[in-house]
Amino acid sequence: MIVDGLHKDLSTLSVGVAGLGLIGGSVARRFARAGVRTLAWNHHDTPYEAARAEGIHCVETVEGLAASGVDILFLCTPLRAMDDILGRIAPVLPPQTTLSDVGSVKTRVHDSVAAAGLDRQYVGAHPMAGSEFSGFSASSAQLLDGALWALTFDDQTDYLRYLLMARTITDVLGNTFIGVDNATHDAAAALISHMPHVVSTALANTLCDSPDCKVGVALSAGSWRDMTRVALTDPARTQAMVEENPANVAALVRQVAQRLLDVADVLDDPEGRAIDLTAFFAEADPYRRYKKAQRDGEPMENGTLTVQSRSWRHQLVESARRGERITHVRAIREFDISWQRVPDTSDVTYRAL
Amino acid sequence: MIVDGLHKDLSTLSVGVAGLGLIGGSVARRFARAGVRTLAWNHHDTPYEAARAEGIHCVETVEGLAASGVDILFLCTPLRAMDDILGRIAPVLPPQTTLSDVGSVKTRVHDSVAAAGLDRQYVGAHPMAGSEFSGFSASSAQLLDGALWALTFDDQTDYLRYLLMARTITDVLGNTFIGVDNATHDAAAALISHMPHVVSTALANTLCDSPDCKVGVALSAGSWRDMTRVALTDPARTQAMVEENPANVAALVRQVAQRLLDVADVLDDPEGRAIDLTAFFAEADPYRRYKKAQRDGEPMENGTLTVQSRSWRHQLVESARRGERITHVRAIREFDISWQRVPDTSDVTYRAL
Repeated sequence: MIVDGLHKDLSTLSVGVAGLGLIGGSVARRFARAGVRTLAWNHHDTPYEAARAEGIHCVETVEGLAASGVDILFLCTPLRAMDDILGRIAPVLPPQTTLSDVGSVKTRVHDSVAAAGLDRQYVGAHPMAGSEFSGFSASSAQLLDGALWALTFDDQTDYLRYLLMARTITDVLGNTFIGVDNATHDAAAALISHMPHVVSTALANTLCDSPDCKVGVALSAGSWRDMTRVALTDPARTQAMVEENPANVAALVRQVAQRLLDVADVLDDPEGRAIDLTAFFAEADPYRRYKKAQRDGEPMENGTLTVQSRSWRHQLVESARRGERITHVRAIREFDISWQRVPDTSDVTYRAL
Repeated sequence: MIVDGLHKDLSTLSVGVAGLGLIGGSVARRFARAGVRTLAWNHHDTPYEAARAEGIHCVETVEGLAASGVDILFLCTPLRAMDDILGRIAPVLPPQTTLSDVGSVKTRVHDSVAAAGLDRQYVGAHPMAGSEFSGFSASSAQLLDGALWALTFDDQTDYLRYLLMARTITDVLGNTFIGVDNATHDAAAALISHMPHVVSTALANTLCDSPDCKVGVALSAGSWRDMTRVALTDPARTQAMVEENPANVAALVRQVAQRLLDVADVLDDPEGRAIDLTAFFAEADPYRRYKKAQRDGEPMENGTLTVQSRSWRHQLVESARRGERITHVRAIREFDISWQRVPDTSDVTYRAL
């Protein structure tokens, strides 16, 4: 079988899933439900009986899974196990298999993949899905209903493998995706997840450190509950997540700290030459208008774009930066994508765009 | 009629409510539903027809309301109108009427009340209730179901007036309260509401200022949504709230900024001499255990306390700092309170207590 994202008949697609946790289990279930031949391995066989009942073929070793010749192998194991898994599969993974993963940080996974000599076969993936539960028993094909994926790349990423992944996400899984380079992905993930986790933790710490903590708890309402919800999740897992993306998190945390110090300066000295407080509170108005358009159920804006093989990386990143979510891929020599996004008229354009 | 919190027969209680917005309307409805003679005034008479249908007696002027001789007059007008209202009622408010309010910041209201020469009649109140809506049409007696109030005081607050307010909240409204001085109230309100609003705004601003903003929005999930929800509310109202409590907010915002900079330092230089990152993520463990006890539905701990007239302020603040919420007040010469709180064994005691 020759991997060819352009001509691959998706009705003959086969996939492998290493790691049947919440995300891996949901991915495997969704492929199996779509009629795709789905092989899976887990580091213990507890989920195998339930997985087999879902039509998932379970294999005994990750080496066996890697050697099976599936078109795409998704690594859905924890990041800390990645180097070990990659070392075990590298000697047996056939060149026609495209390697992917589902992790929330991409640069470090790519570095591990490159160290194992597999980066020419690799396309990173990150589905936006999750729940507060974990394990195969909590997984479901429905967890990915309406999911947006980030499909990531770097300068070495193979065009045809990327196209195979793109068509698989849209045509087989029925999901949407954005295409971004690994570095942009990790900066954005730090912005909307990793940094906020640190901030939420800092708020909870400030409460615990206050002589008024129980008075504060008594007075607390929705705003406090929302701002500290993620601080209540397992702090060790949060720490591990932050440590996987340290430079991006550090830079953003410094930005937030500086904004806070600016506000403190003007509150302490309203006549001073610090920032304009009204401007501080108005700065996010474009985001407020964007969220209002979304809340009001404004019809999605739709469009198509012809992506060319010599400029596909740049075109996909620019599409993502315009807020477009790719719904369909029609592969010819180039490929046409269809997208949708929340409408973005000139007065709701973000300042930076 | 002599105001006497010790001996007042609550079945003859009468109250006045100035301002029939969301909170004022709900307070008035709840008193009327409890069979209390309830007078009200609003700066326009739009809500009067609906209010009268609820058994609320509407009067034409705030001066008329103030002169009516009610036992307690609640000012439920916006803070910006407070000085004007106080100037109008000061000449006509009888000495037997106890003046209160429902604002979320207490020190500034007290200063305005003192400037109007009414501080000897004043007991501050702040019910923990609200919704995303506003106006009398959104108000309801049920909005205060299970509500906790902060009843505040300073060194001048009259013991018997405070007792009348306490008995009214528990026996008439069926709510609970904590007793704290105005300064402690405002510090705690800054901690769990005003400061988090600034932090949430800073996060939304950081998004808008990022070249990756739309990529971030595409990748965003529950943590981002929760952390920026309050930033989506009216920024002018948030700014006004923060500017009513500037010193407390500034101090707390600086504390959070310092915590964030400490984290950035250790992420940028893990071998450096910055903070212990594991300790940072574990610091709020007492709060996590407290919330878990609450989530798990641990039975509330109950107790009683005899509050003495010579030390009532100190005793009530200490009770609030222990996490006790006062459910009943039995007035004798001193008064006995009953309280309940989420259980707090030694291993869930907050560090600072």
